Amino acid sequence: MSDFSALDVIATKRDGHELTDEMIAWMLAEYNANEVAEEQMAALLMAIFFRGLSDHELRTWTDCMIASGERLNLRDLSRPSVDKHSTGGVGDKISLILAPLVAACGAAVPQLSGRGLGHTGGTLDKLESIPGWRAQLSVAEIREQLETVGAVICAAGVSLAPVDRRLYALRDVTSTVESIPLISSSIMSKKIAEGTEALVLDVKVGRGAFIKDRETATALAHTMVRLGIEHDVKTVARLTPMDVPLGQAVGNALEVIESVEVLRGGGPGDVRDLTVDLATIMCELVGITADPSAHLDDGSAYAVYREMIAAQGGDPDAVLRPASLREEVVAERSGVIHDVDALKVGVAAWRLGAGRARKEDSVSAGAGVICLAREGEFVSAGQALFEIYADDDTHLAAGRHAIEGSVVIEDDAFAGRDFDVALIRE
Amino acid sequence: MSDFSALDVIATKRDGHELTDEMIAWMLAEYNANEVAEEQMAALLMAIFFRGLSDHELRTWTDCMIASGERLNLRDLSRPSVDKHSTGGVGDKISLILAPLVAACGAAVPQLSGRGLGHTGGTLDKLESIPGWRAQLSVAEIREQLETVGAVICAAGVSLAPVDRRLYALRDVTSTVESIPLISSSIMSKKIAEGTEALVLDVKVGRGAFIKDRETATALAHTMVRLGIEHDVKTVARLTPMDVPLGQAVGNALEVIESVEVLRGGGPGDVRDLTVDLATIMCELVGITADPSAHLDDGSAYAVYREMIAAQGGDPDAVLRPASLREEVVAERSGVIHDVDALKVGVAAWRLGAGRARKEDSVSAGAGVICLAREGEFVSAGQALFEIYADDDTHLAAGRHAIEGSVVIEDDAFAGRDFDVALIRE
Repeated sequence: MSDFSALDVIATKRDGHELTDEMIAWMLAEYNANEVAEEQMAALLMAIFFRGLSDHELRTWTDCMIASGERLNLRDLSRPSVDKHSTGGVGDKISLILAPLVAACGAAVPQLSGRGLGHTGGTLDKLESIPGWRAQLSVAEIREQLETVGAVICAAGVSLAPVDRRLYALRDVTSTVESIPLISSSIMSKKIAEGTEALVLDVKVGRGAFIKDRETATALAHTMVRLGIEHDVKTVARLTPMDVPLGQAVGNALEVIESVEVLRGGGPGDVRDLTVDLATIMCELVGITADPSAHLDDGSAYAVYREMIAAQGGDPDAVLRPASLREEVVAERSGVIHDVDALKVGVAAWRLGAGRARKEDSVSAGAGVICLAREGEFVSAGQALFEIYADDDTHLAAGRHAIEGSVVIEDDAFAGRDFDVALIRE
Repeated sequence: MSDFSALDVIATKRDGHELTDEMIAWMLAEYNANEVAEEQMAALLMAIFFRGLSDHELRTWTDCMIASGERLNLRDLSRPSVDKHSTGGVGDKISLILAPLVAACGAAVPQLSGRGLGHTGGTLDKLESIPGWRAQLSVAEIREQLETVGAVICAAGVSLAPVDRRLYALRDVTSTVESIPLISSSIMSKKIAEGTEALVLDVKVGRGAFIKDRETATALAHTMVRLGIEHDVKTVARLTPMDVPLGQAVGNALEVIESVEVLRGGGPGDVRDLTVDLATIMCELVGITADPSAHLDDGSAYAVYREMIAAQGGDPDAVLRPASLREEVVAERSGVIHDVDALKVGVAAWRLGAGRARKEDSVSAGAGVICLAREGEFVSAGQALFEIYADDDTHLAAGRHAIEGSVVIEDDAFAGRDFDVALIRE
C-alpha cells in the first residue's frame, strides 16, 4: 500500500510540485486497474495542462505508459527499422506512399497507426477503402511482413501502451488534449513500444493542423525527440506547414487514388516532394544511401505497395471510385487564388462523410473533396474550385455549407507563403 | 439544444475566458441530469481552481445551484431570522450555544447544517450524541419550531441546492476543494436557499482551520459577503483565529457537555466570549437590542436549548458520558505551555473515533479529547495535558499517536498570540 492517495497526487501537481516516480507509477497503474476514478484522472490531466510535466516526470510518465502493455523488438530483423508519425493534416496521405517507398530503399517500415478523429483523416480509414484489406495483424504477421515486404501499415492494436487508449479517450471528452507533455507521451509511448529503431516525426503547424503556432510545434517537436532519444530510438522531427490542403484529394478512397498516382511517378508535386524529403531523412537515420525519387519513377515503390496491400488481403487492382453524388463548387469571381483554407476543406470532407465525430462512427470510403484550385492560380468566374463527393444529399449539403468561404480570390498576384521547414534533432 | 458542448465550456474556462450565463446554467443542469459526466465536471472544477470565476460568473453559478432545488422563505415569520455559518474549527461547538442564545434574544435562528468530514466535527454529529434527537425535519416542522422555540438545528436535507451535494462529493475526491469561488458558492447557495434574512459567517483562519492564511480567508469572506448581499441576505463575516482548540472539549458528546456548561453561565471563557460576540453581531444585523451575556447568566438561553432539543425528540436531561476507555497524556517536562496545536488535536479526536473519513462512516458519540493544558499555563512534568477517550484500544492507540507533539513547553514566559479579529461588511 502506498503512503499517498489519488488526492495527494492531484494536489501535488495542482500546487506546482514535482510528482515522484512512485506517484506516477501508482496513479497510472491504479487508473488502469479502475481503482482511480475517471474524474480523478481528469482532474490530474487538467492540472498537468496548467502545470506541465518536468523532463523527468515526462520520462517516467511515458515509461509507465509503455510498461502498461506489450513491447515489440524489431532490432533482430534483417533490415533496419524506421517509422514516421504525422501529427495530422488535411490531405495527409503521405504514409501510404512513404512506407512502401522507404521499404523499396531497403528499410523495414512498421507503421502501427490509429484511426482518424475530427477533421484530419486516419491512415487505416484510407486503406480500408480497398476491398479485402485488413488492419488487424498479429505480432508474428507484422514481423513476417516486415521481413518479406519491408512495409506494414496496420492497427496499433490494444497491446501497445493500452493505458494510452483510455487516457486519450478521457482527454478527448475533458478538453485536455492540447497539452505538450500529454501529446508527447501519448505518441511516443506507442512508437517506443512498437520497437522501431528510428523515427521521423512530421509535426504539422498551421490552421489545418492540430497545432496552430510554430512556437508550440517547436516545443512539442523538441519534447518528442528528447523522449525518443532517451529511449534509444533515433528520432528527428520536421516542422511542416499545414495551412493549405496537401495535394488535391481529401477523403479516404480519393487519397488512395492520389497516392497510387504518386507511387507511379505522377501526382501532385507537393505530395511527392514531402514524401521524398521524409524518405531521405528516414534512410539517412538508419544509414541507407538511396535516391527515393528514383524508386518512385522506376516503379519499385509501387511494386512494394502492391505487395503490402496484397499481404493484408487487399486487392491492389481494385478500382476505387468516388461516392455517387458529385457536385462542383465554382468561383464567384475571376482573379488569382490567394488562399485555400485547409481547416475548412478538412471539415467539409468530414461533413461529407469521410471522417467520424465519435470513435464508434463509420466512415464513407468515397466521400470527400478534390481541390482543383491551388494558391497562385488564376481562375475565371464559374470555374470549378472543388469537386465534392458524398453518399447522400444530407452529407452533400453539409459539405457544401462547410466549404463555403474556404477560397480567397484577389485581383493582384499571389506572393507565396513563407515557411521555414526545420529539422529538429534535439 | 445549445450551440456549445461540455468540451467548449471546459475549454473556455481553461483558456481564461468568461463563461456565459447560458454555459453555466447548461453545464450545471446537464450535470445534475447526468448528461455531463463526472470527469467533465472534474475537469471544469480544476480549470476553475486555476482560473477562478469573475463576480458575474460566480453570481450566476450560485444562482444556478440555488435554482437546482427548493428555496425556503422565512420572511413571513413573526421573528426576524438570522443564521451563522462557520467554516469549521477544532472544538467549534458554538452553534449549539449560539442558536438558543440568539433565539432567547428574540430572533429566529434556522441552522440548517451538514455533517463533519475530516478533522473538524459536524454540529449534527454532536447533537446526535443526545438520545432520541433527530436531525431530519420537514420544512413545516422547521417553520413551526422557529415560531415556537425560535431555534432549530437540523440537516440541510436534499432539497436545498441539491447539485451542491454532488459537486461537493466530486470536489472531495478530485483535490478541487480549496477554491474560493467553489467554497463560496457551495456555502452561500445553501444559506440563500434556506431563506434566512441575515447571516454571520465565522471564517476561521489558522492551522486548525480549513484556511491557513489570513489573505485567503479575507478574500473568501469578501466573496461570500458580496454574494449574500447580492441575494438580499444581510451578511457579515468575522475572521476568527483557529490555531489552538476552541474550549477544552473536542468530540461529539464531550462538546455537548461543554456547551451546556456555557449555556448555564459557566464553561471556558474563549467559548463564551466568541459566542457572545457572534450573538451580538447577529442581533444587530436584524435590529434586536439585547445583552446576550445576560441570557447566558439568567438561564433563558439554556431554557431555549432544552426546548430546542426536546422539540426534535431529544432528552435534555439525558446524562452524556465520555467513551469507556480513558487515558491521560502527560507533560514530559516542566515549564510554560507555548503551543497547543489545534490541527493535531483535531486529528487525534478524529482518530479516536469522533470524526469520519468517508461520508458513509459512523462516528463515536463519546470519543474525543479534553484539553487540560492551555497556552501560557505552567505545568509540571507528569501533569496531565489531555484526557483522551475512545471505545476500543485500536482507536485509543491511534489517537495517542496522533496527539504526540501537539504541545510545546518552554522555560520562558508565553507572550500571547496576535490576531486582529476583523469584521467584514463588504
